Amino acid sequence: MERVHNFSAGPSVLPVSVLEKAQKELLNFEGSGMSVMEMSHRSKVYMDIIAQTEATLREIMAIPNNYKVMFLQGGASMQFSMIPMNLSKNGIADYVNTGQWATKAIEEGSRYTKINLVASSEDKNFNYIPEFDKSKFSKDADFFHISQNNTIFGTRFTELPDTGNVPLVSDMSSNILSEVFDVSKFGMIYAGAQKNMGPAGVVVVIMREDLITGETLPNTPLMLNYKTHADNDSMYNTPPTFGIYLAGLVYKWVKELGGVAAMQKINEEKAALLYDYLDESSMFSATVGKKDRSLMNITYVTGNKDLDDKFVKEAEKAGMVNLKGYRSVGGMRASTYNALPIESVKALVEFMKKFEMENK
Amino acid sequence: MERVHNFSAGPSVLPVSVLEKAQKELLNFEGSGMSVMEMSHRSKVYMDIIAQTEATLREIMAIPNNYKVMFLQGGASMQFSMIPMNLSKNGIADYVNTGQWATKAIEEGSRYTKINLVASSEDKNFNYIPEFDKSKFSKDADFFHISQNNTIFGTRFTELPDTGNVPLVSDMSSNILSEVFDVSKFGMIYAGAQKNMGPAGVVVVIMREDLITGETLPNTPLMLNYKTHADNDSMYNTPPTFGIYLAGLVYKWVKELGGVAAMQKINEEKAALLYDYLDESSMFSATVGKKDRSLMNITYVTGNKDLDDKFVKEAEKAGMVNLKGYRSVGGMRASTYNALPIESVKALVEFMKKFEMENK
Repeated sequence: MERVHNFSAGPSVLPVSVLEKAQKELLNFEGSGMSVMEMSHRSKVYMDIIAQTEATLREIMAIPNNYKVMFLQGGASMQFSMIPMNLSKNGIADYVNTGQWATKAIEEGSRYTKINLVASSEDKNFNYIPEFDKSKFSKDADFFHISQNNTIFGTRFTELPDTGNVPLVSDMSSNILSEVFDVSKFGMIYAGAQKNMGPAGVVVVIMREDLITGETLPNTPLMLNYKTHADNDSMYNTPPTFGIYLAGLVYKWVKELGGVAAMQKINEEKAALLYDYLDESSMFSATVGKKDRSLMNITYVTGNKDLDDKFVKEAEKAGMVNLKGYRSVGGMRASTYNALPIESVKALVEFMKKFEMENK
Repeated sequence: MERVHNFSAGPSVLPVSVLEKAQKELLNFEGSGMSVMEMSHRSKVYMDIIAQTEATLREIMAIPNNYKVMFLQGGASMQFSMIPMNLSKNGIADYVNTGQWATKAIEEGSRYTKINLVASSEDKNFNYIPEFDKSKFSKDADFFHISQNNTIFGTRFTELPDTGNVPLVSDMSSNILSEVFDVSKFGMIYAGAQKNMGPAGVVVVIMREDLITGETLPNTPLMLNYKTHADNDSMYNTPPTFGIYLAGLVYKWVKELGGVAAMQKINEEKAALLYDYLDESSMFSATVGKKDRSLMNITYVTGNKDLDDKFVKEAEKAGMVNLKGYRSVGGMRASTYNALPIESVKALVEFMKKFEMENK
């Protein structure tokens, strides 16, 4: 069987050329006589891999020198605790609620700090990004947390809140490397690898150095102190070596395509193909208004649950998989991450047109 | 270049047949049209992989039904915190200090609980396993912690302390699946995957159900509560999917070889080859006495640092890599984990004999 068109929301499709390279060297990495999985993380050959991985990420994201890059474990969910455990000083933090992951971040955060809910789009099932009323921002907030792209609800922040001196902390799990971002606007960026960067089990943290104080709330494990990892270049203990290597291959792939700006152009093109059709279709419609639409997760419905189900089933038969929407939105979700080829989006749109014709 | 003889202490050698299978299906797992790395962790195809992985581990270790198996992240170092955060009720725990990792477990543990140091072998640079004086055990200890195999110092517990009703907690990172263990003797077993089970980034926890109460010390993150993972079959958030799949392939490989008892026989044979030679050599000697020798990490010295260095260098040229001992012991360390073929040990012994002849 051929490879499928994989619209999975995560873990998700990886570039074929990356997988082919990993496959080729799976038993013998560059003449080392061993797999990357079999290397001591402190061996020269592996130290070169992780150093190159970081260097390529720094290059493609233009990460300023006063930011540390860390490759950690535990996913974004672990960050929901680590952030307040490490950043709480005044005991108050601003959060915006734009969906399920933001809600989880708030719930976990509230165990460590007072939460000021600046804005929420819960009133409309999170189908938009709320406006900011700056008068609601806390002046003494330890940080300001957003979930920048909302995988389940198909929204994204197209503008960032101006938080002044309060560090902006962004969960970019589903949009990192998809668009050009100015890292210097953030105090901290974090992202699980399993959408735009590699296999599950690696979370990338990009953090302004002055925020890495080593001072934490009581009972914070050594492994959850950012300083532990920052001071040891992500090598305090054995890191997820193979996942980091794979992420490095993905970063090189982005670089060779022309960098994040080129990636963004392709993503905009892919998204436009699908959104344009959704806006003209009389069967399918996007669940999110134009202003707040995600480039990575495109959510849509027919308005008829049975027809949605039929569509998902027939699409799967046609080799287009993981299109079922998340249960809190229903309908369909096409995740169009960096590694999803434009051909997959074209195939989907063609299939939707055909389906619409046949099911009028 | 051929594959090398890889004596790495971890991450370490994997079975060639496992790597070849992973390589073959790296772009298309069993006709799914995608890599295991690209699968939604909640898809049927992946749920089958993790369920089979757990089932095979349960079978080869004969894990009783009243134990939960969890696939977590963060390595053994994260467990050093999670254990006291979850198990502390009376606020006292017994620990045995048998090396660097035990020391780290104690240091981190002491941040959460009073530590009763039952025994230590620090007086002789950890080159033996201390005797137990049962009168030193705490009657109300929340748990009793041991590091069962000491990767750096080449020792292992050949007998377990009888802790009565106090749950025995064992770090088996470097000896899990190397010998037959009676799981029912333990309250909890934990092991980083990167030595005997698969790539770094997965830690396996086997825990008696009555110990998973959900009650924790204050400020324990949701992700560090065992109940979060036990209740969700390691799927509370995205697990390290590819590492778990690889571990599953390793478990099947052990099963096909005849299970852990067969594995133990091969390990004893491999270790005997090297220890017997060390005991008769007039150049090389083992650093650990016969009673406490590890089957997995065999440490030895010439007594002459320059000669040690020469040996390591020439061995590497001969295709035998990662033989340099850890700095706190010096000399050499040959890690002979499950996946290291007996041919690698034979090649090493032959090389040592030749080296001894040539450097008399």
